Amino acid sequence: MAGERRFDVLGIGNAIVDVIAHAEDAFLAENRLAKGAMTLIDAGRAESLYARMGQAIESSGGSAANTIAGVAALGGRGAFIGKVRDDQLGGIFRHDIRALGVAFDTAPAADGPPTARCLIFVTPDAQRTMQTFLGASAGLAPADIDEATVGAAAVTYLEGYLWDPPAAKRAFEKAAAAAHGAGNLVALTLSDPFCVDRHRADFLRLVEGHVDVLFANEAEILSLYRADDFDEALQRVRPHCRIAALTRSEKGSVVVAGDEVHVIDPVRVGPVVDTTGAGDLYAAGFLHGLTRGRELRACGRMGSICAAEAISHVGARPETPLAELVAREAG
Amino acid sequence: MAGERRFDVLGIGNAIVDVIAHAEDAFLAENRLAKGAMTLIDAGRAESLYARMGQAIESSGGSAANTIAGVAALGGRGAFIGKVRDDQLGGIFRHDIRALGVAFDTAPAADGPPTARCLIFVTPDAQRTMQTFLGASAGLAPADIDEATVGAAAVTYLEGYLWDPPAAKRAFEKAAAAAHGAGNLVALTLSDPFCVDRHRADFLRLVEGHVDVLFANEAEILSLYRADDFDEALQRVRPHCRIAALTRSEKGSVVVAGDEVHVIDPVRVGPVVDTTGAGDLYAAGFLHGLTRGRELRACGRMGSICAAEAISHVGARPETPLAELVAREAG
Repeated sequence: MAGERRFDVLGIGNAIVDVIAHAEDAFLAENRLAKGAMTLIDAGRAESLYARMGQAIESSGGSAANTIAGVAALGGRGAFIGKVRDDQLGGIFRHDIRALGVAFDTAPAADGPPTARCLIFVTPDAQRTMQTFLGASAGLAPADIDEATVGAAAVTYLEGYLWDPPAAKRAFEKAAAAAHGAGNLVALTLSDPFCVDRHRADFLRLVEGHVDVLFANEAEILSLYRADDFDEALQRVRPHCRIAALTRSEKGSVVVAGDEVHVIDPVRVGPVVDTTGAGDLYAAGFLHGLTRGRELRACGRMGSICAAEAISHVGARPETPLAELVAREAG
Repeated sequence: MAGERRFDVLGIGNAIVDVIAHAEDAFLAENRLAKGAMTLIDAGRAESLYARMGQAIESSGGSAANTIAGVAALGGRGAFIGKVRDDQLGGIFRHDIRALGVAFDTAPAADGPPTARCLIFVTPDAQRTMQTFLGASAGLAPADIDEATVGAAAVTYLEGYLWDPPAAKRAFEKAAAAAHGAGNLVALTLSDPFCVDRHRADFLRLVEGHVDVLFANEAEILSLYRADDFDEALQRVRPHCRIAALTRSEKGSVVVAGDEVHVIDPVRVGPVVDTTGAGDLYAAGFLHGLTRGRELRACGRMGSICAAEAISHVGARPETPLAELVAREAG
């Protein structure tokens, strides 16, 4: 699949700067934050919550953007489409993704709300709780989808979170149609169980008719099918997607493609510090393997290695050179 | 010394957001960056260097601000004076220092250059190389020095870097005079050997006539006296300051106060990751001990513990609760 196209993976998603701080469980309770989930908040709530947040660090984020950063760190050719404002945080987002060699040319908004930020509270158990103010990111529109870029990418990878801002949903559909029109693959991550809950009917339609490669964690795939256990959801998804990669945290992952089913062990690399980005980096490793023509079992293993790197430090973008890590671990 | 005043330590310095990335030594050479030093750069150079910088994280910084963050993390009552612009990075700086309980009320600039940023390149040997665009920080002026705040602080701690922006120099002198007028202590860090070189005559005048507590690392104190070795510099500084705390990286530190001389061992806490902030956090530990009436030997030990925490992670602000660390290590 590699070689003839300009990009291995094009990511389309919310363009977000993460604001990351440690927090106690009591803080989550006091502020009524849904632990482990991604909750959308408005500008006022973002401001009042930030005022109560501890000392933080800022790091570029966004689910699909993290995945593309991972693909680039693995040596893949990545592109990204997402909307920032022409402000300082937007400049940071643009700098960081371009610094990895990713093509990112979406025009920043010249007015309207500021660049999106996600307040991330990391509790002592390394779980992350996300509160997202979408800001300029919600302005992503069909006009931002450059069909030449979509046509040039072996895989177009879309995040379920795009289903939250209304215009982005149309951008999503335009991109998926363009990808298929060019004979390329469409990949989707379900993003978050509450996101699935908000858009279940749409996601079912996508998964059953438009998605070639599906990424979901256990809570998300259970939510999609309102299934009682993992195996039930697994059997439900099997007939639909060409490939589904279902991640299960410390249980590893299951990769299914028709009759082919692989149960992949997790990879351990020391203490778990912050789970932010684990799913995003799993997708990076998997897609990089896929675009390099690796077998599905090897793709899953590469996903596990990258996810393990992501949870070994604070922040969602890879810190260790992923290409070396995969070469060492995956052989 | 503690108790009767509202603040233990007031820091006055440049209000800076750090932009931190890993870099190879070859990158420093290619871009002619003076390794280990702090170099002032203009807006154009900041932009072109940032464009060549790798993926980064942002974290509030500034030498004296880091020290005050450390004092607050130790349970001390801190205040800070420094100038940001009313932009997103300025908001981040304000949030982070206030989140620690530090009083920070300097009015942000409503126009002029943006909030200061320091591009920090961390090489594989954990050394940091800093390129600072002072921006709004250079606008700190005597009018920003609130004499009531200075009067309310047991120690006013000033960074030598303030000698670079011309108006800040006058602010520095106003603050020192107000502190002494209120019967409080004036502390100074020499900041950087090149900074000492730029302002040697002024720093000699300050050290020999106006500073009660001096902080300097080996390169700085050698530069101040153009001395050939550490002992020569030590003997030169002894008669002047009430207290001098001279840090020597892996050799520990020497604390001198008239006839009293203590040679303090360094503290080791695992691998050295990033030396950014080591001196700033040493000063935090030392000053916290001093304002709590600890003996100089204990103050030096607290400085070593805090410096060891600072070099164990990326970034200059403390990550581990320092109060617990000091309680455990210093007994």
